[in-house]
Amino acid sequence: MGTGVSRTLAVVGGTGPEGTGLALRWARAGESVIIGSRDAARAREAADKISSRAGAQVRADENTAACAAADVVVLTVPFLGHAPLLKSLKPHFKQDAILIDATVPLAAAVGDRPTRTLGVWAGSAAEQAAELLPKVPVAAAFQNVSSELLNGDGPIECDVIICSDDTRAMNTARELADKIPGLRSLDGGKLENARIVEQITALLITLNIRQKSHHAGLRITGL
Amino acid sequence: MGTGVSRTLAVVGGTGPEGTGLALRWARAGESVIIGSRDAARAREAADKISSRAGAQVRADENTAACAAADVVVLTVPFLGHAPLLKSLKPHFKQDAILIDATVPLAAAVGDRPTRTLGVWAGSAAEQAAELLPKVPVAAAFQNVSSELLNGDGPIECDVIICSDDTRAMNTARELADKIPGLRSLDGGKLENARIVEQITALLITLNIRQKSHHAGLRITGL
Repeated sequence: MGTGVSRTLAVVGGTGPEGTGLALRWARAGESVIIGSRDAARAREAADKISSRAGAQVRADENTAACAAADVVVLTVPFLGHAPLLKSLKPHFKQDAILIDATVPLAAAVGDRPTRTLGVWAGSAAEQAAELLPKVPVAAAFQNVSSELLNGDGPIECDVIICSDDTRAMNTARELADKIPGLRSLDGGKLENARIVEQITALLITLNIRQKSHHAGLRITGL
Repeated sequence: MGTGVSRTLAVVGGTGPEGTGLALRWARAGESVIIGSRDAARAREAADKISSRAGAQVRADENTAACAAADVVVLTVPFLGHAPLLKSLKPHFKQDAILIDATVPLAAAVGDRPTRTLGVWAGSAAEQAAELLPKVPVAAAFQNVSSELLNGDGPIECDVIICSDDTRAMNTARELADKIPGLRSLDGGKLENARIVEQITALLITLNIRQKSHHAGLRITGL
């Protein structure tokens, strides 16, 4: 999708800190954004806050309607909601829509620590998404970006390593990452590499805990 | 081990690029280093090259003898040699010796790609080491440092995320990382977190391939 073409982004499961932060940043960058939630009223509330901070209108809708209106669906949900939400959204994707999955299978989902990940049969949350949505191109991205920094105003010192088997999904995710000040997108290869990128989030949580921060991220050096 | 106390480092399986690079850097930093190899003559050859580059004497010996002389044993072997070497070294560790494991279970070990890792029953190469050597404190470290940069002369733009369940092993590994110009040590928590750090190496190999580099590393930001 080139410049000048109007594109709609839906951030589904988007009322959590990662979703609202991404929506804020993209609204500021001039993207047309819909916040999706199970509860349209909650989505509305989140969207209103973001709109007033971004100085730009962010729409809101129930997840299914948000998905149906979107060219790019961005998924930011706790892992427990990942498969159920994708199953319910499946019939509602537009013909050429792509999915950007930021989900991390933190073991906190089952009451264990957020510094560990669950083993996912498909390999990663993103590969699980691709398995559940065989017709939708999937890119894994944004798992490692601090939600606290996304919800702030400054540039974010972090690389976004994007994994996808689809060129269009890869390029769209890269473009969206590069629209957020400070972030740098990197081609992380095949979707299966999301196994590693997702786990890095658990390691960043360890480093945050040990260093009493909420802002850990990563930069790849030497390229 | 404080300053002023003479300590011996053995880099076992140390004639490969990671081992020679670490030995070079530590010899330059004034550490007493022995290169170990299955073949004492090969170890001698590698040690001679390193000695002339470092301007400091690096010793050489067969792996077992190198281990027996060491206060700190550093393991830099392809994954296929990991368990067999540790089993053979087990009776030869000094009473208070520690092990620093830099091994990554790249799938290249079984003819698959170096951009993937094998599943290790213990969780990671470093946990496998700890299982094989129940009396030796283990730290996982240095997996993500470019061997090409280690074998060069410049500072290395990379963080060394160290995972250990033992304070002395953690501190020794941190100290040794911080002796190499550019490297920054970080406390990466428990030894089990080596699962993630080891896999990051496979991701760095992907990034190297995609960007035609051999120098990919990482810096943690936001701490």
